[in-house]
Amino acid sequence: MTKAKRQLSLDEYEAGLRAGDRSVLGQALSLVESENPRHREDANQLLQRLYAKTGAAHRIGITGVPGVGKSTFIEALGSLLTSLGKRVAVLAVDPSSVKTGGSILGDKTRMTKLAADPSAFIRPSPSSGTLGGVARRTREMMLVFEAAGYDVVLVETVGVGQSEAMVYELVDTFLLLLLPGAGDDLQGIKRGILELVDLVLINKADGDAKPAAERARHQYQNALHILRSDEAQPPAVGLCSALEGTGIDAAWAMLSALHEQAAASGELETRRRRQLVRWMWALVDEGLRSRFLASPSLKAALVQLEPEVETGRIIPPEAARRLLALWSGSEPSS
Amino acid sequence: MTKAKRQLSLDEYEAGLRAGDRSVLGQALSLVESENPRHREDANQLLQRLYAKTGAAHRIGITGVPGVGKSTFIEALGSLLTSLGKRVAVLAVDPSSVKTGGSILGDKTRMTKLAADPSAFIRPSPSSGTLGGVARRTREMMLVFEAAGYDVVLVETVGVGQSEAMVYELVDTFLLLLLPGAGDDLQGIKRGILELVDLVLINKADGDAKPAAERARHQYQNALHILRSDEAQPPAVGLCSALEGTGIDAAWAMLSALHEQAAASGELETRRRRQLVRWMWALVDEGLRSRFLASPSLKAALVQLEPEVETGRIIPPEAARRLLALWSGSEPSS
Repeated sequence: MTKAKRQLSLDEYEAGLRAGDRSVLGQALSLVESENPRHREDANQLLQRLYAKTGAAHRIGITGVPGVGKSTFIEALGSLLTSLGKRVAVLAVDPSSVKTGGSILGDKTRMTKLAADPSAFIRPSPSSGTLGGVARRTREMMLVFEAAGYDVVLVETVGVGQSEAMVYELVDTFLLLLLPGAGDDLQGIKRGILELVDLVLINKADGDAKPAAERARHQYQNALHILRSDEAQPPAVGLCSALEGTGIDAAWAMLSALHEQAAASGELETRRRRQLVRWMWALVDEGLRSRFLASPSLKAALVQLEPEVETGRIIPPEAARRLLALWSGSEPSS
Repeated sequence: MTKAKRQLSLDEYEAGLRAGDRSVLGQALSLVESENPRHREDANQLLQRLYAKTGAAHRIGITGVPGVGKSTFIEALGSLLTSLGKRVAVLAVDPSSVKTGGSILGDKTRMTKLAADPSAFIRPSPSSGTLGGVARRTREMMLVFEAAGYDVVLVETVGVGQSEAMVYELVDTFLLLLLPGAGDDLQGIKRGILELVDLVLINKADGDAKPAAERARHQYQNALHILRSDEAQPPAVGLCSALEGTGIDAAWAMLSALHEQAAASGELETRRRRQLVRWMWALVDEGLRSRFLASPSLKAALVQLEPEVETGRIIPPEAARRLLALWSGSEPSS
């Protein structure tokens, strides 16, 4: 929370969000972003109150290697959506920004048109914390945007670390942007992404790159047919040029067709339910582990045992047994 | 443990395994298989004693859809290996056999030649328990085989549930068997397998199927180049016919070349270290969760909360908070 501002009451947050007050929205986002325990408590109460008003948005994850043109694409797609009367939220997830100093200015300066659009709201992920922390804040910010009536939430991932898998757990539709030039540009794309995506778009399919983009499209489509042959309908591969603005209408048509199909078939509900239960269990496991690691004697034992396990001196079941025994010793069971 | 047999001492186990006594080997395997808490304790002590003598074997995981010819392939590869003077252990992992009644007879009758070979030992995974339980037993049996001087351990997975990912965590080299006829036969192969495999073999590349096998090889090789472009050397795709015995020598040459390369580059050590640490953490997490779930009040709360989370009435952080609070209440922290 910005210190200068008076802390709003839960009622004020709720009314402000309903009224479309951007300042209240910004404060609500800051509240869920805060790691201050008192703010966390308020944020949980606020989210529980807002919860019934969430879920109506189309949640879209967007990934791709640096240089693929994610910002330009989001600027183009976002502007198309606001021109269609939709309100668009952009969340940029960048766990790496801890080191790089954050992408906050970066995103807003790269998406100048969208940043000035009253129907859009760009909010980069705060440049701090673990992937788990980033995931929590991103989820909660998404819910705040939804309660504020945003129709589409675009979650951008920088493709670093495990951020794609994390974003996949948040969204309804996961889009991968690629460059023309089959194969080579997958350098840097994490393994497993092709298993998760719902749609692939080859960006920068313009000018001299058009033939290469067509070839790449063909190759990726074949690869996806093999890789995802367990599905009735493997992900489609489309072409676009965010810079020239071509293929963006078609991309949106594909994205919303996927969303409507998923909603009609019940797949969307299944996916969201699964995400919710996994979210709960991830938090429980995280809580258990952090309590476990909070014990100084356990931490000391771990520092000693882990290298012995790694180098094959102690068998993992024995190490686990010792760690769990220390835990039982420190926390008498009821 | 077979009740008729006297329980051996740890010294007797150790000496018997060193001497190559198949009866002692069978009893040691049964010991680690047992869920009886007293046997578990003995098994842990035995494994810790044997541990320094393990690790010399080449651990190979083999997966593929039913009908791809895994048993015929293992029979052919295993027989080649024993003819080369190697001792071969076969572990068949089948978490689904809980329902089907087990593959114990199945494997031995399908691999008649290998079953009668004094240099081979076929041991199916017991037909009981969770995937975690099967994983533990398979790991521990592998160590027993290694302590008994086996040179190659073949771990077969039936490709059901999460068994492939589990086997991947156990082995040095992971082999996928496919059928000629690109794409179609990947029906039933779980997503993510192509990301994990180290080598692909198209089996049944014989007779009329040869041209189709060649085409499939080409297509899979292309798909793997795209999918695994983050690696200097994506997995190779070979052909074989386990029935005719063709391509088995070449398959072994590829498998051992991969193993030697991994050993020389240090990748093998890295992979095994990572497996050990993940094994330890999996056991710790499992232990924490099972203690957590052992509380009747928690179990009751979970039954009530999970549907509320699934249907969007309670936000996951709130559900997790309540569950963890109950845990804190039942186990006063030190």
